[in-house]
Amino acid sequence: MNSAIIVAAGRSQRMGTNTDKAFLNLGPKPVVAWSLLAFEECHEIDRIILVVRKDQALAAKTLSQMFGISKLQTVVAGGANRQDSVLNGIKELDPETRYVSIHDGARPCVRPELIEATLRCAKRNGTGIAASRVWDTVKYVERGTTVDHTVDRSKLWTVQTPQTFNLTLLTKAYADVKKKKASVTDDASAVELLGESVRLVEWMHPNIKITTADDLPLAMAALNIS
Amino acid sequence: MNSAIIVAAGRSQRMGTNTDKAFLNLGPKPVVAWSLLAFEECHEIDRIILVVRKDQALAAKTLSQMFGISKLQTVVAGGANRQDSVLNGIKELDPETRYVSIHDGARPCVRPELIEATLRCAKRNGTGIAASRVWDTVKYVERGTTVDHTVDRSKLWTVQTPQTFNLTLLTKAYADVKKKKASVTDDASAVELLGESVRLVEWMHPNIKITTADDLPLAMAALNIS
Repeated sequence: MNSAIIVAAGRSQRMGTNTDKAFLNLGPKPVVAWSLLAFEECHEIDRIILVVRKDQALAAKTLSQMFGISKLQTVVAGGANRQDSVLNGIKELDPETRYVSIHDGARPCVRPELIEATLRCAKRNGTGIAASRVWDTVKYVERGTTVDHTVDRSKLWTVQTPQTFNLTLLTKAYADVKKKKASVTDDASAVELLGESVRLVEWMHPNIKITTADDLPLAMAALNIS
Repeated sequence: MNSAIIVAAGRSQRMGTNTDKAFLNLGPKPVVAWSLLAFEECHEIDRIILVVRKDQALAAKTLSQMFGISKLQTVVAGGANRQDSVLNGIKELDPETRYVSIHDGARPCVRPELIEATLRCAKRNGTGIAASRVWDTVKYVERGTTVDHTVDRSKLWTVQTPQTFNLTLLTKAYADVKKKKASVTDDASAVELLGESVRLVEWMHPNIKITTADDLPLAMAALNIS
């Protein structure tokens, strides 16, 4: 069994709202509904766990019903930060789960093909992480706005979600994170911390994260909503 | 006097065309016309030099006339790579030029305020480079698609254009690049190579580079073209 955990439990401070940006409207549907539908349409995914802020749980259930998300297993309350929210999702996974795909609810442009590609990679290598090469020139800045040096961009990739894992590996990785009292900015970092290999899946299409109001029209364009 | 050099002399291999992407249509105007108009509207800029492939020179002149670019000083033929194209532009600068703003013709979302901000910074510090913080998690990958480690993204910025310079400094920097037979991916790198300080100007709005066909609808959304 393959499960997905969609995390939409933030506070969107940069958006200037108190609710997670995943609940804002993006064309005809809320941001998070686009992701829910992509996982619903992906044949390889059996169950979906949705992590939201406690006060959004009812709204999240209603929304999932409205958009016919038949794979929704449960809606879980998020934790104090993203990492805790993911862990709350992992706790609810069906014991039959072998692979888990973790996805940011604020990335509505995810497509079933991308989910499948990360899953295929995870089955072969333990991990499959949506990623893109960096094309802009990158500068290393120790402090302020004065450049220290230019970084060799040919060695840099940015990672997004979905990030898909062999569940045994991910559970072990997060136990290690807890033991080391570390904090990670993405789930793949937990596996790196364990010293295990992390494999990227190149994705050439926009996989925009809704962070500021400027991102909404870009995501609409990427989703072909006019 | 402050001049601009707009570079649109590439081959757009990733776009699958043989012409520079700057000449593709973006809504009602070609990509490069958006940049030309932003520099035309920017009160601080006195002259514009446009660098294009030799066989596009006539098209570029016609286009500039069509969109009323009164500041256009000349259209120059590009070189074998971006660096040479910029140098061809520098050679044509009016001898009165004290500050020069170099801009990629494939970045149509540039706004007069951004040009002014980089110019203001260059007047104070010698350089003013359009830049954004990196929000996605960044992985260092030595080869293939296996992650080596996660890079501390809080120290990383991506740079775009316009990149604005004190002309004396930039000329000295490019002479040094030539002497060292170095190649640089952006103009700021030439100044870094010289050991001089480079200052970034944070820009929070989209400053998309047209690289693949996917980028056209994103740029249209950012430019508010429906």
